[in-house]
Amino acid sequence: MSQTESGRTDSGICPPKTARGQKTRESLLRAAEKVFGEKGYYVASISEITQEAKVAMGTFYLYFRDKEDVFRALVQHMLELLRTHLRKHVAAATSQMDAERLGLKAFLSFVSRHKNLYRIVLDSYSVDETIYSGYFQVFADLYSRRLSRAAEQGEVRPGDAEVRAWCLIGISNFLGMRYALWKRPASMDKVVDAAFDMITHGLQAR
Amino acid sequence: MSQTESGRTDSGICPPKTARGQKTRESLLRAAEKVFGEKGYYVASISEITQEAKVAMGTFYLYFRDKEDVFRALVQHMLELLRTHLRKHVAAATSQMDAERLGLKAFLSFVSRHKNLYRIVLDSYSVDETIYSGYFQVFADLYSRRLSRAAEQGEVRPGDAEVRAWCLIGISNFLGMRYALWKRPASMDKVVDAAFDMITHGLQAR
Repeated sequence: MSQTESGRTDSGICPPKTARGQKTRESLLRAAEKVFGEKGYYVASISEITQEAKVAMGTFYLYFRDKEDVFRALVQHMLELLRTHLRKHVAAATSQMDAERLGLKAFLSFVSRHKNLYRIVLDSYSVDETIYSGYFQVFADLYSRRLSRAAEQGEVRPGDAEVRAWCLIGISNFLGMRYALWKRPASMDKVVDAAFDMITHGLQAR
Repeated sequence: MSQTESGRTDSGICPPKTARGQKTRESLLRAAEKVFGEKGYYVASISEITQEAKVAMGTFYLYFRDKEDVFRALVQHMLELLRTHLRKHVAAATSQMDAERLGLKAFLSFVSRHKNLYRIVLDSYSVDETIYSGYFQVFADLYSRRLSRAAEQGEVRPGDAEVRAWCLIGISNFLGMRYALWKRPASMDKVVDAAFDMITHGLQAR
């Protein structure tokens, strides 16, 4: 891939070489998170992003090719922010199941702070379905590996790790939407505990 | 609400009075499912819908006010189709938990037949977040009631029915996307069994 001075590549998502370039790119992505999140992909414009980031229009094109390019980079950027956030909060886990619980809790706190995450990720489905599927596939792979490891260690009952991974993604995703985005509960910990109880022990009475 | 001869109301989603009007409205909704599903809300146009339905542009406006109006009616229509489908397949359930299993299976078969469901529902988030949240709230209420009933009957362990309902919605939604829409498995029954095993017994080894 050829690189320009700002570090732009054909994919438009490689980081710039200089610290200053990196900072400008991050300002543009922060602005894009706000503008795409508030207006939606189809209504948002590049000029709104550059105004929000306080950079000239010409500068934008040093980093991104067009609206779709900055949007793709934004989804990737949000994914990395979320992964970093999860990694930090899951580090203290004492077991694989404890990692699940801490991960769910950390995801809900991330959504509370990044209210635009959902609209951006949901919009990606209509921009290009593979952005959306790729985003969730990253988490499916992470969950599957953790569940397989947990089954090998005897912590989790044997079972289809991939199906279970998609179930866990679905749970996080919808709890985040319902409780972190739409209507916050009196206690988020109680939501995490109730969900985690179901994930751990299932619903059936014994 | 005042009604026109075709039965259009202020909300635009009440059914027409005559059988013929009803048929035309259904043709328009079927066409809308195809056009919105393939092109997405923002790119799709009313003229594509009328061409697909083989009706005159003027006829469209007897039933719907504008693009947003037909889109709202479409989401409502898909919701009703899905509920009818689920009701039919869950009727044979021998217990509340069996109803969960049959419901999940029926949902996956519905998605296989209505590939455009996801794009339409996801697009509704950016058209008006309340269309999207309203759609899922209907299912959350249904699940909550069923889970509360199951807990009263001692079939399910006591727990927060609302949190559990959103977990179950998340599971159905993401399994449908992954296995009915993106990449069909060799056996859908095995996917249902693996997910249902997790829902029933949880992940933790005993």
